[in-house]
Amino acid sequence: MSSSVRLCEVGPRDGLQNEPETLSVAQRAAFITALAQAGHKHIECGAFVRAASIPQMADTAAVLAALPPLPGVALTALVPNLEGMEAALAAGCKSVAVFTATSESFSRKNTNANVAESMQRIEQVAARCRSSGTQLRGYVSTVLHCPLEGRTDPARAVAIAERLRALGCAEISFGETTGKATPAEVRVLCQLIQAAGLMDCSALHFHDTFGMGIANALVAYEAGARSFDSSAGGLGGCPNAPGAAGNVATEDLLHLFAGLGVSTGVDLALQVRAGQVVAAALGRALPGRAWRALIQSPR
Amino acid sequence: MSSSVRLCEVGPRDGLQNEPETLSVAQRAAFITALAQAGHKHIECGAFVRAASIPQMADTAAVLAALPPLPGVALTALVPNLEGMEAALAAGCKSVAVFTATSESFSRKNTNANVAESMQRIEQVAARCRSSGTQLRGYVSTVLHCPLEGRTDPARAVAIAERLRALGCAEISFGETTGKATPAEVRVLCQLIQAAGLMDCSALHFHDTFGMGIANALVAYEAGARSFDSSAGGLGGCPNAPGAAGNVATEDLLHLFAGLGVSTGVDLALQVRAGQVVAAALGRALPGRAWRALIQSPR
Repeated sequence: MSSSVRLCEVGPRDGLQNEPETLSVAQRAAFITALAQAGHKHIECGAFVRAASIPQMADTAAVLAALPPLPGVALTALVPNLEGMEAALAAGCKSVAVFTATSESFSRKNTNANVAESMQRIEQVAARCRSSGTQLRGYVSTVLHCPLEGRTDPARAVAIAERLRALGCAEISFGETTGKATPAEVRVLCQLIQAAGLMDCSALHFHDTFGMGIANALVAYEAGARSFDSSAGGLGGCPNAPGAAGNVATEDLLHLFAGLGVSTGVDLALQVRAGQVVAAALGRALPGRAWRALIQSPR
Repeated sequence: MSSSVRLCEVGPRDGLQNEPETLSVAQRAAFITALAQAGHKHIECGAFVRAASIPQMADTAAVLAALPPLPGVALTALVPNLEGMEAALAAGCKSVAVFTATSESFSRKNTNANVAESMQRIEQVAARCRSSGTQLRGYVSTVLHCPLEGRTDPARAVAIAERLRALGCAEISFGETTGKATPAEVRVLCQLIQAAGLMDCSALHFHDTFGMGIANALVAYEAGARSFDSSAGGLGGCPNAPGAAGNVATEDLLHLFAGLGVSTGVDLALQVRAGQVVAAALGRALPGRAWRALIQSPR
């Protein structure tokens, strides 16, 4: 088995987008810089979306402009459509992400488009990525459960991922949106990803809403997954459930992989410090388990 | 593989003992009653210790006296020595627990006795259990890590468990005190427990301090463990680390086992309600992940 994994730190986008506060450009840039200093090579840095809809992600272009040079770090911005793609290119963005869902209801609620329509938007963005030499990442959400529809079919998630791959996505992130999935379901999902020959270009994106995040990451790793999304301090609690946990916390994942002898390239102490940067900006502690333990008594 | 596990709900003792607040006798009795209503057949209900040292556990006799009849529910009280044992018997207690540690420093800090001395105390309590027909449970703490000594030798923990078994303990609980252990270490511990022929009389007691609780429970289950300690809403944050997570949360464990098709005998919705009873008494939300998610949007 390989003894290293790739992490995508999603705190500055998926994390902050789902927190009630809106941080300033300088605060977001300081957070991203601290994450890069911790060793992250892939950071989800923001989104080119309407500021009226998602104020937390406003001024992503200014955030990118405020960053120091971060050589070797891929900074990925979410783009919902061609308009967002053009804005990302204008901001000098070299890596963008598109998103769709396994379930129709969630797609409509999240993007105001059904899955087929969202794939059409993605085709347009993908074409512009090819013409501009921009890296493309795809997100498929609700891969096992949907907050609106309940259980979803992971085979459908994998079929969508195959189409995203064919459109040129370098990596497809499988989002377990609700956090309800348990290890048995994650094993089934990973088997389907393997069977489709997609594991090398797939990331697993877990939420810790029901405390399953690390257990699910463990079984995914043991099923061959080598790329994971996570969020500093577990940022990203669902806006509809204040106090509920968000994305699986990067520090918990680093602790897990350190214990398994698996290299991540990220320094845990510096990761905790990056969390302190964003916690100070938010004015409150982050929910992550290891983060809370380590700010009390660093090792 | 067996498709059921036994749970020991430790919220009223290990949980509340490590929270800053001291609840009233009526509040503690209401909590225990709600846990029994949720289906628990084994509840750690209190401790016969000096009230000056641990005010949270004062008046455990009065708590027991305040309970309605709970047929089929074992109510276990911690007793540190023969004096506590006699107090437990006087209160009508039918099940007691004794504790020792894998590491000498932790034993001295926790019980003011080295491991050999704590075993002598346990021998006295065990003799009194035999003469009085009282059920005996043994705790071994710091089975993989010690907050004072760092890594400990799980073979030593298992050797101590063998002695506790020989002294008449019906069950021995292996306490991963720090929450630092990761699944690879838990697998080694479980292999040693199996090799010693102790798995049928062993419980695994995890903490979620670093977010590993559920992943560790999963690998322990897959390694043959069928008995787990857990705490309502993850009560039991370490008093030296405010905000840090405590015992693995019962609701997270119930969610895990439900997803694996493993029966626990405990109803998740009623468990959440028991957590609400103690949360109301404490005047604050509990840290548990699934608990927080489910009080927002019950399923």
